[in-house]
Amino acid sequence: MFPATRLTKLLGIEYPIIQAPMAGAVTGPDLIAAVSNAGALGTFAGAMIPPVAIRKGVAEIREKTSKPIGVNLFVLEEPAPDPQQVARALELLQPIRDALGLPPGAPLQKYCEDTNAQFEVLLELAPAIASFTFGVLPKQKVAALKARGTLVMGTATNVAEAEAWEDSGADMICAQGSEAGAHRGTFLGDFDGSMIGLMALVPQIVDAVRVPVIAAGGIMDGRGIAAALMLGAEGVQIGTAFLTCPESGLAAPWKNSLLRASGEQTRVSRIYSGKPARGVENEFMRRLDAVRDQIPPYPIQNALTGPIRRAAAGAGRPEFMSLWAGQGVAMCRELPAAELVATLVKETHSALHSV
Amino acid sequence: MFPATRLTKLLGIEYPIIQAPMAGAVTGPDLIAAVSNAGALGTFAGAMIPPVAIRKGVAEIREKTSKPIGVNLFVLEEPAPDPQQVARALELLQPIRDALGLPPGAPLQKYCEDTNAQFEVLLELAPAIASFTFGVLPKQKVAALKARGTLVMGTATNVAEAEAWEDSGADMICAQGSEAGAHRGTFLGDFDGSMIGLMALVPQIVDAVRVPVIAAGGIMDGRGIAAALMLGAEGVQIGTAFLTCPESGLAAPWKNSLLRASGEQTRVSRIYSGKPARGVENEFMRRLDAVRDQIPPYPIQNALTGPIRRAAAGAGRPEFMSLWAGQGVAMCRELPAAELVATLVKETHSALHSV
Repeated sequence: MFPATRLTKLLGIEYPIIQAPMAGAVTGPDLIAAVSNAGALGTFAGAMIPPVAIRKGVAEIREKTSKPIGVNLFVLEEPAPDPQQVARALELLQPIRDALGLPPGAPLQKYCEDTNAQFEVLLELAPAIASFTFGVLPKQKVAALKARGTLVMGTATNVAEAEAWEDSGADMICAQGSEAGAHRGTFLGDFDGSMIGLMALVPQIVDAVRVPVIAAGGIMDGRGIAAALMLGAEGVQIGTAFLTCPESGLAAPWKNSLLRASGEQTRVSRIYSGKPARGVENEFMRRLDAVRDQIPPYPIQNALTGPIRRAAAGAGRPEFMSLWAGQGVAMCRELPAAELVATLVKETHSALHSV
Repeated sequence: MFPATRLTKLLGIEYPIIQAPMAGAVTGPDLIAAVSNAGALGTFAGAMIPPVAIRKGVAEIREKTSKPIGVNLFVLEEPAPDPQQVARALELLQPIRDALGLPPGAPLQKYCEDTNAQFEVLLELAPAIASFTFGVLPKQKVAALKARGTLVMGTATNVAEAEAWEDSGADMICAQGSEAGAHRGTFLGDFDGSMIGLMALVPQIVDAVRVPVIAAGGIMDGRGIAAALMLGAEGVQIGTAFLTCPESGLAAPWKNSLLRASGEQTRVSRIYSGKPARGVENEFMRRLDAVRDQIPPYPIQNALTGPIRRAAAGAGRPEFMSLWAGQGVAMCRELPAAELVATLVKETHSALHSV
C-alpha cells in the first residue's frame, strides 16, 4: 500500500503524484489520460490557450479517462504594453528571427488570453482540481470553484504566498522549489529571495498552513517522492520527468536536449517570456542575457518570442527554443507514462523501506 | 536505534550528523565538543586562521571531548592581487569604513593563510576527518591524510566535482545544495548552474560515486535529515541550525538577525569575500551589489572587508556584517547543542515513522 495522504483522499486517487501542467503540445490528452489512468493525476495546461481550446482539450482527455484530472490557469493582470519597449524588444529579437528566416516581427493586438473567459470555462468543466500560478485568486473565485466540486491548489514559492492562498480558501498549496523547471510562480516579494530549495521551503510552508502541501521541483524518482513526504508534503508535482515520456508532445530537439543535459546546465532567465523560468541554457538565453533589463514584462515578451520558439522547434534548432527543464533533468528517463508512474511508486516504497 | 550508515560506521559516531565548519569564533571549542559529546560530529573551521591557531583550537577541543572531531581547510590557489583592483575595492569600501569610524583602508601584505603550512598541521593533528572546500586536493595529499588515519571529505556542488573528489581518493562527498549558508564550494564549472537544490543534487551525486554522500543545505530539523536519507545521503552536514546554540560564538547582532529573518531574506552575493556566499540581505550587500563586477576575487575582497565586518559586529551594526545563513534560517532554534542533537535525532525518528 502506498501511504495515503490528504491529497489522495481529497482527490480519490491512488498515488499522491500530480503531473505538472506544461504548456503547448507537451501535456496533451494522451499523456494526461495515461497519468490519471495509472492512478496519479494528470493536469492540463489551460493558461496559454483560448477558452474554446480548453473545452476541446478537456473533452479529449475525458474520452480517454474517467479518472480525476486537473486544469491549470494563470492569475494575471491585464497587460499594458509600452510601444517603445515593444519596439526595442522586437529589435533585440530580430537577429534571431533572421537566423530562422522569419519576417520582421511586429507589435501584437493581443498578448495573452482573456483570463476571465478562461475562468468561466473552468467553472463549466469543473475538473477535480484547478491549479493556479503567478498570483492568488480572490476568495469569491475560489468559492465558486469549490461550489462546483473543484478543489483549488495555489502555487507558492515562499511562506507569504502560501499564507495568501490559504487565506483565499485554497484546498492545498503547491510549494514550488528553486529546482523546478519552467516559470517561477513568485508573486509576492522578491524573485531572488524566493529561489528557495525544497529542503528548506517545504517544512516552512508545512508549518505555516493547515492545508496539505504538494512539493514541486527537481523530483525525478521515488527517492525524491519519499524525501518530499519526510519533509511533510502530502504529495508531489512532477514536470520534467514526464517530458520525456513517449506520450508527451515534446518537440524532438527539446527532448534530445533534455536527454543530453547534465545537472548544472539549467539556468533561470526571464529573456524568453519576461518572467523568470528555468530551462537548459542555450544560445537564445546567452544572447539576450546581456540586454535582459530591456526586455518587456510577461506576457508581452512571451508573446513576442512565441513565433521564434515555434519556428525553431519546427526547424530542429534547439538553440533558439525555450528548453524548459528542472534541475533533475539529468535523471530523465524515456518510460511510457503508466510505466513511469508504476516505477515512481515502486521506487518510493523501496526508498521508504531503505532506512 | 538511529539508522546506521557508512558515515557512522567509518567515524564510529552515533548519529550521521556533522556540524558544519563555520569560520571565526562561531564554531569554537565549546560548540564543537558539545556536538561531538552528544554523538554527532563537531567540525573546527581551520581555513582562515594561522597554523598555530589551528593547533591551539584543536588542543582546546580535545580537552573537552575524546570523541571524533573534524577540521576543515580550503583548497586555494596563491592569491595574485592586482594593485589597481585593490585600490578600487578600497575606494568602494571607504564609505562603509567611514560610517563605522574606521581609518582609510590600505592594501595588505597578506590576503590569506599559508595553506601548505595549515596542511602540515592537519597531518600532525590527525583529526578523525578532514573536510575541504573550494577545490580538490591532489591524490598524494589525500593519501597522506589517510595514512595518518584521517578520513577525507570533499565538498561538491555538482556531479563533476563529486567525481573529481572520488578520483582523488576522498572517503566521502559533501553535496552542498543551493540552500546552504555561507560560501559556495563551486570549483568546476559555472556558479549559477551549480546552484542546485538538494532534492535534485543528492540523487545525482549518489548515482555518480561509490563513496558515501553527506547532504548539506537548508537542513534544520529531523524532517530534513529523514529527507536527505531518502535521497540516498548517508549523513547530513548542518550549519545554520547550530549558529543559534548558546555555545556558538555568534555576535549578538548576527544572532538577532537570524532569529528575525524570514525564509526569503537570504541572498547569494560575492560582495563580502569575492566568492558567492549566502547570507541575510543587508545594506552592505545592497550597496555593493551595483558594483559587484569591480570586486576583486577571493581571498582579496575577503581580507579587505574583514576589518569592516569585525568592527560592525563590535559596534552592533548588522547592516555592515556578513550575516551568513542558509535558506532554512527561519527555522532557527536556541537550544543548547546537546539538546539540539537529541532533538534532531528524535525528530528524524518521528519523520521516518510518519509515513
